[in-house]
Amino acid sequence: LDNTALHEFTDILVFLLHADPNMVNAGDMNGSGNLMDFLDEPFPDVGTYEDFHTIDWLREKSRDTDRHRKITSKSKESIWEFIKSLLDAWSGWVVMLLIGLLAGTLAGVIDLAVDWMTDLKEGVCLSAFWYSHEQCCWTSNETTFDDRDKCPQWQKWSELLVSQSEGASAYILNYFLYIMWALCFAFLAVSLVRVFAPYACGSGIPEIKTILSGFIIRGYLGKWTLLIKTVTLVLVVSSGLSLGKEGPLVHVACCCGNFFSSLFSKYSKNEGKRREVLSAAAAAGVSVAFGAPIGGVLFSLEEVSYYFPLKTLWRSFFAALVAAFTLRSINPFGNSRLVLFYVEYHTPWYMAELFPFILLGVFGGLWGTLFIRCNIAWCRRRKTTRLGKYPVLEVIVITAITAIIAYPNPYTRRSTSELISELFNDCGALESSQLCDYINDPNMTRPVDDIPDRPAGPGVYTAMWQLALALVFKIVITIFTFGMKIPSGLFIPSMLAYHHHDWIIFRNWCRPGADCVTPGLYAMVGAAACLGGVTRMTVSLVVIMFELTGGLEYIVPLMAAAVTSKWVADAFGKEGIYEAHIHLNGYPFLDVKDEFTHRTLATDVMRPRRGEAPLSVLTQDSMTVEDVETLIKETDYNGFPVVVSKDSERLIGFAQRRELILAIKNARQRQDGVVSNSIVYFTEDPPELPPNSPHPLKLRRILNLSPFTVTDHTPMETVVDIFRKLGLRQCLVTRSGRLLGIITKKDVLRHMAQMANQDPESIMFN
Amino acid sequence: LDNTALHEFTDILVFLLHADPNMVNAGDMNGSGNLMDFLDEPFPDVGTYEDFHTIDWLREKSRDTDRHRKITSKSKESIWEFIKSLLDAWSGWVVMLLIGLLAGTLAGVIDLAVDWMTDLKEGVCLSAFWYSHEQCCWTSNETTFDDRDKCPQWQKWSELLVSQSEGASAYILNYFLYIMWALCFAFLAVSLVRVFAPYACGSGIPEIKTILSGFIIRGYLGKWTLLIKTVTLVLVVSSGLSLGKEGPLVHVACCCGNFFSSLFSKYSKNEGKRREVLSAAAAAGVSVAFGAPIGGVLFSLEEVSYYFPLKTLWRSFFAALVAAFTLRSINPFGNSRLVLFYVEYHTPWYMAELFPFILLGVFGGLWGTLFIRCNIAWCRRRKTTRLGKYPVLEVIVITAITAIIAYPNPYTRRSTSELISELFNDCGALESSQLCDYINDPNMTRPVDDIPDRPAGPGVYTAMWQLALALVFKIVITIFTFGMKIPSGLFIPSMLAYHHHDWIIFRNWCRPGADCVTPGLYAMVGAAACLGGVTRMTVSLVVIMFELTGGLEYIVPLMAAAVTSKWVADAFGKEGIYEAHIHLNGYPFLDVKDEFTHRTLATDVMRPRRGEAPLSVLTQDSMTVEDVETLIKETDYNGFPVVVSKDSERLIGFAQRRELILAIKNARQRQDGVVSNSIVYFTEDPPELPPNSPHPLKLRRILNLSPFTVTDHTPMETVVDIFRKLGLRQCLVTRSGRLLGIITKKDVLRHMAQMANQDPESIMFN
Repeated sequence: LDNTALHEFTDILVFLLHADPNMVNAGDMNGSGNLMDFLDEPFPDVGTYEDFHTIDWLREKSRDTDRHRKITSKSKESIWEFIKSLLDAWSGWVVMLLIGLLAGTLAGVIDLAVDWMTDLKEGVCLSAFWYSHEQCCWTSNETTFDDRDKCPQWQKWSELLVSQSEGASAYILNYFLYIMWALCFAFLAVSLVRVFAPYACGSGIPEIKTILSGFIIRGYLGKWTLLIKTVTLVLVVSSGLSLGKEGPLVHVACCCGNFFSSLFSKYSKNEGKRREVLSAAAAAGVSVAFGAPIGGVLFSLEEVSYYFPLKTLWRSFFAALVAAFTLRSINPFGNSRLVLFYVEYHTPWYMAELFPFILLGVFGGLWGTLFIRCNIAWCRRRKTTRLGKYPVLEVIVITAITAIIAYPNPYTRRSTSELISELFNDCGALESSQLCDYINDPNMTRPVDDIPDRPAGPGVYTAMWQLALALVFKIVITIFTFGMKIPSGLFIPSMLAYHHHDWIIFRNWCRPGADCVTPGLYAMVGAAACLGGVTRMTVSLVVIMFELTGGLEYIVPLMAAAVTSKWVADAFGKEGIYEAHIHLNGYPFLDVKDEFTHRTLATDVMRPRRGEAPLSVLTQDSMTVEDVETLIKETDYNGFPVVVSKDSERLIGFAQRRELILAIKNARQRQDGVVSNSIVYFTEDPPELPPNSPHPLKLRRILNLSPFTVTDHTPMETVVDIFRKLGLRQCLVTRSGRLLGIITKKDVLRHMAQMANQDPESIMFN
Repeated sequence: LDNTALHEFTDILVFLLHADPNMVNAGDMNGSGNLMDFLDEPFPDVGTYEDFHTIDWLREKSRDTDRHRKITSKSKESIWEFIKSLLDAWSGWVVMLLIGLLAGTLAGVIDLAVDWMTDLKEGVCLSAFWYSHEQCCWTSNETTFDDRDKCPQWQKWSELLVSQSEGASAYILNYFLYIMWALCFAFLAVSLVRVFAPYACGSGIPEIKTILSGFIIRGYLGKWTLLIKTVTLVLVVSSGLSLGKEGPLVHVACCCGNFFSSLFSKYSKNEGKRREVLSAAAAAGVSVAFGAPIGGVLFSLEEVSYYFPLKTLWRSFFAALVAAFTLRSINPFGNSRLVLFYVEYHTPWYMAELFPFILLGVFGGLWGTLFIRCNIAWCRRRKTTRLGKYPVLEVIVITAITAIIAYPNPYTRRSTSELISELFNDCGALESSQLCDYINDPNMTRPVDDIPDRPAGPGVYTAMWQLALALVFKIVITIFTFGMKIPSGLFIPSMLAYHHHDWIIFRNWCRPGADCVTPGLYAMVGAAACLGGVTRMTVSLVVIMFELTGGLEYIVPLMAAAVTSKWVADAFGKEGIYEAHIHLNGYPFLDVKDEFTHRTLATDVMRPRRGEAPLSVLTQDSMTVEDVETLIKETDYNGFPVVVSKDSERLIGFAQRRELILAIKNARQRQDGVVSNSIVYFTEDPPELPPNSPHPLKLRRILNLSPFTVTDHTPMETVVDIFRKLGLRQCLVTRSGRLLGIITKKDVLRHMAQMANQDPESIMFN
C-alpha cells in the first residue's frame, strides 16, 4: 500500500469506528497537513437512530465487526484484556441464559397467579387464601379424584358470606360476585395499561415482527412495559375474557431480552445485534407459553424473525431450553412435565381418517379467514370511529358481556386451558367429566380402551349442547376482544373454538362404529387447523402441537390439516392475522413472504420523479457550511448523496442528516475558524487555500464511502429483494455512473402498496 | 412514459425474457430505425450455464418472474391458457407429490432389499428365497419370540450345503461364505459405480450442498446416478461395511427431485427454481431415512440448503410428509409405525442426570473432532498418493477386513440398525437379548419395570466385552470407509459408535443404585451427541432423534447434549464433516456459517490488481466485431463490463461471454452485412452511419443493464455478505462512477482462503 491508500484506509477506519476518541480532524490553515486539531470526544449519539426510523443492517453489522476486531487485537495486549475478550465472546450465551431464566420464572409466576385469581372469582381457600382451588383441595388430602368440588377448605363466596352453598339466591350471589371480580380485574388492567405503559396492550407480535425487521419503537420493549404487561396479563386472563396468554408471553420474553441486552454494550449499542437477542427471546417466549422449546425456535424462525442467522438458531435453541427447563422446575401444572396438555393415545390412526383430517383443515382455513376479516373490520372501525375514544368503557362492556354469558355454561366458566386439557384427553375409567358420562357396563369386563363402544349417557348430550353454545359464543366474543387496549393473545381462544366444533361433528359420526376414532385426536388436529388458518404457520405449528400434547405418532394428520388449512385460507387472502394487524397499523414492514412480481424498474420508483425538483445533493468540495445548513433546514431527508460536482453528478458517498448536523454543531463549537462561509470538504486532502480564506471543515469521516447503488434499469423485484435481504434503509440510483435519484425503504413500501391497489399513504407509522 | 422510455423498457424486457422468439434485432443500413430484421429463433442455450460454473441467482429469479408474468397475462386470453396457468401454479405441489412418492417407494424397496441381502450372507429361506430371515420365520408361524433362530424354513448355508448346523467346520464354512458374499456385493457395487455412474459414490451431501449453493455439476443428480446409487447402496449396506444409508438416501431423493423437475419447464429451464425443488427433495430424503418428516425439513434448512424461502419450507414439509407416508404404507419394518427405533420409556429423568448428559455431549464433541481429523487426513492421503489409483482394490480390502473381524462378534455381524434398535430399547420381560440377561428372581413378584435392580447375569458381562470390541473396531473402520468410491453414509455408524461407549461407562455406574437410570436413554443421548459432533447439526438433530425414537419427554437432555457437543467440537475446528469434505474437494462453496471479520476492502480483492494489465472491457459504440472476437479469444473471463468509452470508464452494463459468442456467431450466420469490421453497438440507437460503412451489430439485448456494483471502499465483509445473500456470480467495483475492477465469487473464496492462511489455489473444482 502506498501512502495515499494508507491515508484513505485510515480515514475509512475512523469513519467505521466512529467512537474513536482521538478522531483525526485535519483542518490546518496553512494546508501543510501536518498540524491537526483533535476533537476531545466523539459526537454523542453518533451511530444511534431516532424513534420510528429504520435501521441500516449492513452498517450495524459492519460496526459490530469493527468492535469485535478491536477487542481481538486488544486481547493480545494483557491478560485482563484477554479475559475481557473471553467475557465478550460468551456474553451472548450469558444473555440467553438470563433471558431463559427470567422468561421461565415469569411464565411460572403468571401461570400460578392466573390459577389463583381465576378461582378467586368463585371462592377462596380458608386454610391459606393464596391457594387456588386445586392446591387448596390437594393439600387438604381429603379428596379423591371424584369429589374435587367437595373439599371443606374451599368455600364459594356464597358459603362464606351467607353460609349457603345451594339454591337460587346463592347462585345469584356467586354469579354477581363472579361478574364483579371480572369487571374489577379488567378495569384494573385497562387502567394500568393506559396510565403506565400504553405499549403493553395487544398481543405484541405484530409490533415485535416490525421491530425485528429493523424499525425503532422506543419503549415498546422497555422495563415499564415488561412490568405492566406481566401484571395486566394475569388480570385479563383471570377476568375470563376470551384471550390467551401466549402472544403476550412472547412480548414479555422480548422485553426480558431487551432488558438483558441493555446490560451488555455488545448488544445495547448495536441495534442489529440487539435484534438477534430479541429473536431468541421470542423463541423462549413461545417455549414457555406452550412448553414447546423446539416449536418456539421454529416459531421465531418462521413467523417472527427477519434476520435469523444460524448462530441465532443455536442461541434461540439454548434460550428456549433454559426457559422450558426453568418453567419445569417451577412446575406450575403440578405434573412435572414440560407439557401442558399431555395426552397419551394408544390407538393408531387409519388411512381413511385422512379425509376427515383434511376436512378439518378446510374448516380451519375458513374459520381463519372469517376471523381475520371480522377482526380487522372491527379494529378498523375502532380506529376510525368514535368507538376508539372510549377504550376503558369498551373493555368493561366486553368483560361484562363475557362474564354474564360465560357463567351459566360450565364450559365457558372455567379457564380455557382447563377446558382444552379436558377436550384433548380421552375418557379414562377415572374421568369424572360430563363428557365421559358413558353408561358403564356393570360387569366391566372390557378393558378401559373400549369405553367409546359403550352407549352415551345423558351427560354427553348435555355436554354437547353446552359445547356448541360455548363455541358460538367464543367465536363471536374473540373477534371483539382481540385488539382491545389490553394484553391479549390469540392462540388459546382459536384453539378452543375449534375443539368444540369437531367434537360435535365427529362425536356423532363415530359413535356407532365399534372401531371408533379417538375424539381427542380430532380435537388436536382441529386446533392445529384452526390456529393454522388464523396465523398461517405450518411447520412450527405442527411442532408446537405435538410438543404440547406429546402426540408424536400423529405428525401426518397434523401436517395434513395444517397444510390444507393454509391452502384454503391463502385462497381467500394471503395475510395472516399478524400481517393484517401490521398492515392495519401501517408499520413499515417489508414482508419476506410477499412476492413482488410487477414489471416496474428502479427508475419508476426513485425520487425525484419526472418533473420534480432535482435531488438534493452535497458536493465534495464546493459548498459552504451555510449552504449545507440551509439544505438541512429546507429538507427533511434522512441523508444526502455527495457528488463530485453538480455538473458531473458522479457519486462519491452518502452522508446521514443526523451526523451532518452533529458534526457541524460540534465543529462550530470546538473548532476555531469554522464559520458559515467555511468550505465543507468531503475529499481526502483539501487543496491549499489562500491565507485569508476561512478554516475549512473536513467531513470525510462522516461520509459513507460505500453507499449502495443500483442502475435505473434494475427491475424493482431485484431492488425489493436487495432491500429485504440486506436490510437497507436507502439505495441510490445511477445511470452510467451518474447519480439519478434515491429509493428509500418507504418508497419501496409505498410502491408495493400502489401496485397492490392500496392506498400508498397508509404506509407510515401512525 | 414517453417514447424513449418505452423503447428502453421494451429492450430490457426483451433482454430479460431472452427466449422471445421474435427478438428485435434492429440493424438497418439506412439507420432509419423502422426496418428491423428478425431472427428466426432465439439463440440456443441462452440462459443456461456451463458445467462447473456458478449460477446467478438474481438473474434466475428475474427470469422466473418474467415467465410467471407472461403466463398470468396469457391466462386472460382463453380458457385453455387459464387452465395451463393453473397447472403451472400447481406444478410445484405436483412435483413435491411425485418426489415424495418415489423417494418413499425407493426407501421402502432399499430397506426390504437390504434386509434380504444382509440375511443372504448367512443363509436362505427355503419356503421362498426372497424372504429375509425375519419374514421367513414370521410366515412360518412356528416361532415364539424366544427361538427366532430355530425356525425350520431358514437354513444357514452350512445346513444347506453340508447338512451340518453346528461344529467347527460348519462355522468355518459359514464364516467363509459370509466373507465371500460380502466381497461379492462390494465388488459388484464398486464396479457398477466405476463403470456407469462415477458420481454415485460417497454420501453425496457435500456435493448437494455445493449444488444447492448455485454450482453446476452436470450428471451429479442424473437418472443413471439415481439408478446406480440405489442398487449399489443396497449392495454396500448388505456387504456389512461400516456405513449408513442415510446420506445416500438424501442423494437418491435429490436425484428424484432433479428427475421430476426436468419434466416441468418451470423448473427444468430455471436453475434457481430447480434448486428449490432439490432443497425439498433433500428434506424428503431425510424424512424417509429416519422416518422423521419434520427433522427432514429442518435438516434441509439448517444443513443443506442455501436459498430457502418460506415457500420452500412449506413445500419441503409436504414432500417430507408424502415420502414418510409412502414409506409407512410400504411398511418395511413390519410395525406400522413411521419410526424405525420406536422406544417407550416411562421413567422421567432427574436433574442430577443433566451432568452425565453434558458429559456425553463433551465426549460426542471430542469423537466428532477426532473422526473428522482422521477421516480428512486419510481422504487427503487417498487423493494425493498412489492409493487413490486402486479404488476397487481398496474397497475389496476394507470389505474383507470388515467381514473377517465382524463375523466372530455377534454385535458387528448383524446389521447396524438391528443393533441400534436393541441398544435403544429397555430390557423387557420378553427380551431374549444377551444384554438383558439379568438373573431372574424366581418368585417374580416385582413388576417388569424393576428389572435393572436384579443382579446382572454372565451374559451382560460377555455382551459388554463384545460391545467394547465392536466400538473400537467400528470407530477405526468407519474412518477408512467414509470417502471410498462407493455410496456411503455416516449417520448410523457414528450413532452406533457412541452407543457402545456410553453403555460401557454407564452400565457400570448405575447398576448398584436402586433408582437406576434408563440405559436406553443414555444410548439415545450419546447418539445425538456423537452425530452432533460429526455433523454440527443442533436443532434438526434433536428433532430427528426424537422423531426417530418417539422420546418426546427427553428434549432437554437431547438439547443439552447436542449443544455441548457442538461447543466442544467447535472449539477444535469450525468445520463439520460435510464442510470438511467440501473444502477437501475444493468446491466453490460460500458457507453461510463462516464469518468474515477481516479489514480488507473491495479494492484489495478486485482484479486487476496494482501493476496488472487493465480490466478487459467493451465500449458501447466504438469496437468492431473483430475487436470483440479478439478480446474473447485472448481472455477466458466469463463476462465483460461495457463502458461508455475507454477514457471515461463510466459503466453501462455487463455482457456474458457465452452470450456474446452466441450472439456474434448467430449474427454472422444470419444477418447480412455483419462482417469483421462492423461496429458493435450496445447503445439504444446507433447513430446514422455513412452509406458505405458495414452493417452495425446491435447487442443491447444481451447487455445486462443492471450489473451489481460496489465502491472500492466497501469493506470486504459487506461484499461477502452481498455475495452470500444475493447469490451473485460477480460484482463490479467503481469509484465515483468510474469502473475500477471486478470481483468474482472465486476471487471472494480465494481471498477468504488467503485470510485464513490457506492455499488460495485450492479453491477450484478439481
